Amino acid sequence: MADHGVLIAIGGHEDKEGDREILKEVARRLDGGVLVLATVASHEPEGYFEAYEDAFKDLGVTELRELYVHERTETSDPDKLALFDGAAGVFFTGGDQLRISSQIGDTPVESRVRDVLSRGGVIAGTSAGASMMSETMLVRGSNQESYRIGDLHMAPGLGLVRDMIIDQHFAERGRIGRLLGAVAHNPRVLGVGIDEDTAAIIEGRRMTVMGAGAVYVVDGTDSSHSNIAEGSTQQALSMHDVKLHVLSAGDSFDLRRRRPEAARED
Amino acid sequence: MADHGVLIAIGGHEDKEGDREILKEVARRLDGGVLVLATVASHEPEGYFEAYEDAFKDLGVTELRELYVHERTETSDPDKLALFDGAAGVFFTGGDQLRISSQIGDTPVESRVRDVLSRGGVIAGTSAGASMMSETMLVRGSNQESYRIGDLHMAPGLGLVRDMIIDQHFAERGRIGRLLGAVAHNPRVLGVGIDEDTAAIIEGRRMTVMGAGAVYVVDGTDSSHSNIAEGSTQQALSMHDVKLHVLSAGDSFDLRRRRPEAARED
Repeated sequence: MADHGVLIAIGGHEDKEGDREILKEVARRLDGGVLVLATVASHEPEGYFEAYEDAFKDLGVTELRELYVHERTETSDPDKLALFDGAAGVFFTGGDQLRISSQIGDTPVESRVRDVLSRGGVIAGTSAGASMMSETMLVRGSNQESYRIGDLHMAPGLGLVRDMIIDQHFAERGRIGRLLGAVAHNPRVLGVGIDEDTAAIIEGRRMTVMGAGAVYVVDGTDSSHSNIAEGSTQQALSMHDVKLHVLSAGDSFDLRRRRPEAARED
Repeated sequence: MADHGVLIAIGGHEDKEGDREILKEVARRLDGGVLVLATVASHEPEGYFEAYEDAFKDLGVTELRELYVHERTETSDPDKLALFDGAAGVFFTGGDQLRISSQIGDTPVESRVRDVLSRGGVIAGTSAGASMMSETMLVRGSNQESYRIGDLHMAPGLGLVRDMIIDQHFAERGRIGRLLGAVAHNPRVLGVGIDEDTAAIIEGRRMTVMGAGAVYVVDGTDSSHSNIAEGSTQQALSMHDVKLHVLSAGDSFDLRRRRPEAARED
């Protein structure tokens, strides 16, 4: 659960030219405030900022400021930190989640990000920017394959949300296998798989879904068996009695009770 | 559940050159008997028979007989029907499941297939040959996408197994979305998604898994909500409280009680 503010985890490829439903929601929640666009996940951020500048045009964001760091040393640079002054939100673009965690993890920049959240602001992230919100984040793992024991690379994320592991490009890249594998490691974490052009909006104990696709919630709490510790490397995962919820636009989920609630019919 | 005999549903791309674990199991269960190789699912069956002849070589199958039908009229041809004389099993190769159902559904050839099963024989099928075993079979539906209302083509299958809908190439083609969609239509049917080079062996009420990958069992019995009937076309599926079991080699599943059982450790 997120303590304060709002997390908007996007599964990648959010619409940037049509209805821009998700970006519109990000903008709406900024309430006219400044947005820091963090392109940190990218090795070559050229063009990202301009693309989002276009995408956010006419959506009511008064100011968009780019944050990029080439090296950890830059994360205490006063100019970089000043970008957060009065910011209502931070938007992390896609790329490599390890770049986010390794460049800004445990630095003044990360503190500024947390400050935005604790003063009730918005932290949004798409693709790698969504994954990094997890405590323990998924870094690599096979797509379109059942999970094989050992075939997963996890790392400490920023931990903006607790007890949750977020995966993205979910249905599009066939990632149910690896998310099940991740949850099998410790069912304390709830697996949340977000489709492209789809967002999970987390406020306190409540997660709400918006966008074109679905959000898959993998709850291993009541699972009765898994071979994750016994299985030899490259053996296929076995895991019984997993609870799966498929949530689509308007559905919400109580993260404390781990219970879904259907969209109200209008 | 299957009444008599053994069904071996294979998720496609079973190993034909290395260990040939699954084909070896098919051969073992024939106990030296004749196998009819039905290439009916293919529009152009050339080469299929030879490939399986090579693959089954040295595995103890005494005789392999090819069954192909160009038209339904051929399904009462005495020569075709004679292929089943004394056959211990039938193996359906891949292709299009609609070709199997439309060509041999409700014909003397289908009766012969059922005869083999009811005298305790083996009916194996890979890919389309696995799908067609379902009562209502999945014909088409998007891969690597969450299920959208209306985006699924189902048809009456041969119904060799009741209350089950079988999907194949499962993890490899990202098919969890469409299987969930299929089950949402009527949770009476158990969804069974079989990975490549993996088999679900069904004998009476028991289903056992063998091979390199996993078999996913989607049980919607206790699902608390779905928007399948209310949702408008192209809306993403919402379905809550689905039970999911991931079974790997050695795991089994009681189809009557809908309960998994883990592989015994050796």
